[in-house]
Amino acid sequence: MISRDDAAARDAADPLAAWREEFVIPDPDLVYLDGNSLGRPSRRAVEAMRRVVDEEWAGGLIRSWDHWIDAPFTAGAAVARLLGVDGDEVVVHDSVSVNLFQLVHAALALRPDRRVIVVDPGEFPSDRYVVAGIAARTGHEVRSGFDRLDDVAVVVRSVVDYRTAEIADVAAETARAHRAGALVVWDLSHAVAVLDLDLHGAGVELAVGCTYKFLGSGPGGPGFAYVARALLPSIDQPIWGWFGRDDQFAMPSAYEPRPDIGRLLIGTPGIAGIAAVQAAAEVVADAGIAAIRAKAVALTGLALDLCAEHGLESPTPRDPERRGGHVAVRHPGARRLVDELTAEGVVTDFREPDLVRLGCSPLTTRFTDVHDGITTLTRLLP
Amino acid sequence: MISRDDAAARDAADPLAAWREEFVIPDPDLVYLDGNSLGRPSRRAVEAMRRVVDEEWAGGLIRSWDHWIDAPFTAGAAVARLLGVDGDEVVVHDSVSVNLFQLVHAALALRPDRRVIVVDPGEFPSDRYVVAGIAARTGHEVRSGFDRLDDVAVVVRSVVDYRTAEIADVAAETARAHRAGALVVWDLSHAVAVLDLDLHGAGVELAVGCTYKFLGSGPGGPGFAYVARALLPSIDQPIWGWFGRDDQFAMPSAYEPRPDIGRLLIGTPGIAGIAAVQAAAEVVADAGIAAIRAKAVALTGLALDLCAEHGLESPTPRDPERRGGHVAVRHPGARRLVDELTAEGVVTDFREPDLVRLGCSPLTTRFTDVHDGITTLTRLLP
Repeated sequence: MISRDDAAARDAADPLAAWREEFVIPDPDLVYLDGNSLGRPSRRAVEAMRRVVDEEWAGGLIRSWDHWIDAPFTAGAAVARLLGVDGDEVVVHDSVSVNLFQLVHAALALRPDRRVIVVDPGEFPSDRYVVAGIAARTGHEVRSGFDRLDDVAVVVRSVVDYRTAEIADVAAETARAHRAGALVVWDLSHAVAVLDLDLHGAGVELAVGCTYKFLGSGPGGPGFAYVARALLPSIDQPIWGWFGRDDQFAMPSAYEPRPDIGRLLIGTPGIAGIAAVQAAAEVVADAGIAAIRAKAVALTGLALDLCAEHGLESPTPRDPERRGGHVAVRHPGARRLVDELTAEGVVTDFREPDLVRLGCSPLTTRFTDVHDGITTLTRLLP
Repeated sequence: MISRDDAAARDAADPLAAWREEFVIPDPDLVYLDGNSLGRPSRRAVEAMRRVVDEEWAGGLIRSWDHWIDAPFTAGAAVARLLGVDGDEVVVHDSVSVNLFQLVHAALALRPDRRVIVVDPGEFPSDRYVVAGIAARTGHEVRSGFDRLDDVAVVVRSVVDYRTAEIADVAAETARAHRAGALVVWDLSHAVAVLDLDLHGAGVELAVGCTYKFLGSGPGGPGFAYVARALLPSIDQPIWGWFGRDDQFAMPSAYEPRPDIGRLLIGTPGIAGIAAVQAAAEVVADAGIAAIRAKAVALTGLALDLCAEHGLESPTPRDPERRGGHVAVRHPGARRLVDELTAEGVVTDFREPDLVRLGCSPLTTRFTDVHDGITTLTRLLP
């Protein structure tokens, strides 16, 4: 049996343990296992938002746009370090759903002769809705299987499954799609800041992600988009606005997209949220994504070992190479269990129809949190 | 001649003067005449953002979604008070460019037999770009004249001209378009929080607006959309996401829009920015939009009187009924003048090709600011 002392010993030996001090944690006894839905705030992210509001907005006023104008790009460069891509291939703005809408449309424009979009029925619902909304207007067929891709324009796919935490084989799936002439837009929402990503190495050309999960930019923080440099000049996205226009303040009458990744920008971007993304990404990069990934494997491994001990069923892969930063427990009473856990000071979340998700955020989650969480869950079982 | 003492006397008699204390103003000597581009922060807006970050995010964590889920609607209801519409007809989310993209698409879907979108060449560039981007994908014709509307699906039009501050005749133009079978999407960006709007009275069915100008939600604060209740059930917008779906956490496979104004929501909305909008709108409502409008007329009237005294040319209407919350001064050296004014502690902004804009924000701009601004401008003239 794995004891609480065993977990405490792992915390004592954890090289990332001190990073927890870099976060705002008013409730040290709370067992927070939902950083995969909403990460805890780092002190630097909070300070970045405070600086935007108190100093740059109140003090600098409109003059602060001299440097705010660069914020989507400097934040993009900070996120790029976590993805294994170049700093000028990522931009932070709007929501991940909007980012996805833009890149799917851009991909369709690059494959005008193909009429199929592939998205799995198990894909995160919001991504399926974005695809369905596009197809409802353009007349594309939405298909669920990956077997045949030779008539497919674009595949939309998550790197980490939001329910099971299974990691897709990004390099192999991307190569297979590209061989068939299809593009792939990868959704990194449940992967960024917890997986050691290498999008260049995997041949990825298009990706989006949200920043408020493991990355920790705050509720509804802006999303990001990645476009491989070679594809950038041909990216034609459908929501045109003055921030996406080349030489925007000349305000010429015809729209001409910026030559760089800024062509994905739309209206005036939300500066406080973008500043939080940049600070949060710098915290992750400074802690080291390799160390973060190693601890995520250890935390989720402990969770699965405890599940096995207690006879809990989990659809999360045992193979650490195929497992992201959370663990799911399957139980018919999952919804009630999540509520009862919260009442006991263990915060998890429920996903239809029967999953309790336990998120393991390497910079703030302790091995004792995992132990306490699974132990409490077991105690609450009928 | 109007003396500085005359202006100071008007400040002393100003019933709104005390509201300046409700704003964060670290630089009381700065003559800030650019609240039409970026409003100063109210203490309540700053406090609302701080509360979201320090208490609700850091403290409540994911549990705060219990009430965050209502934020786009409660903020919408606060904005609705400034528009003369019902609280459940407005929602705050994403950027105003995205809001406009959604409503123009929705309007086109309501007029499937018509192939024309009308937008004036003098319209705010970002709005023209949004329309051009839509037309580039749908094949609609973009027309600039308002003479003939019987083949027009939708007109996009600003209530206040971003250069001259001229106010459109909203009721008459809306009625004329509706008689011809066209819809109108009004852009309230330069009007909200400085005009005493009555959208219901004017027969307006669709409108969007940004919140970081006179309203004061901070740089890149989220936009808002208004849809008249009668039109709501038939609104079909193109960017589908999980927040726009009915019963979103059931995560069913097919998209079904929410029955209410929430059908305009897309992905997870940015909570800190939305909280700032709500607080900022409550400040404006509490100060009283009628008093704000009266002071805007007085401030801009003083600016025009001073322009006349000093022989400055202005395209801004003399008729207060036709004049919004800023005054434009036309001068061939406008760009240089704006830079020199900033160096002298007078913040205005430049708009192509030859305009200096002076924004008059009734809750923070003093009559002496207007006097100092025009006097300094005159002194800097070649």
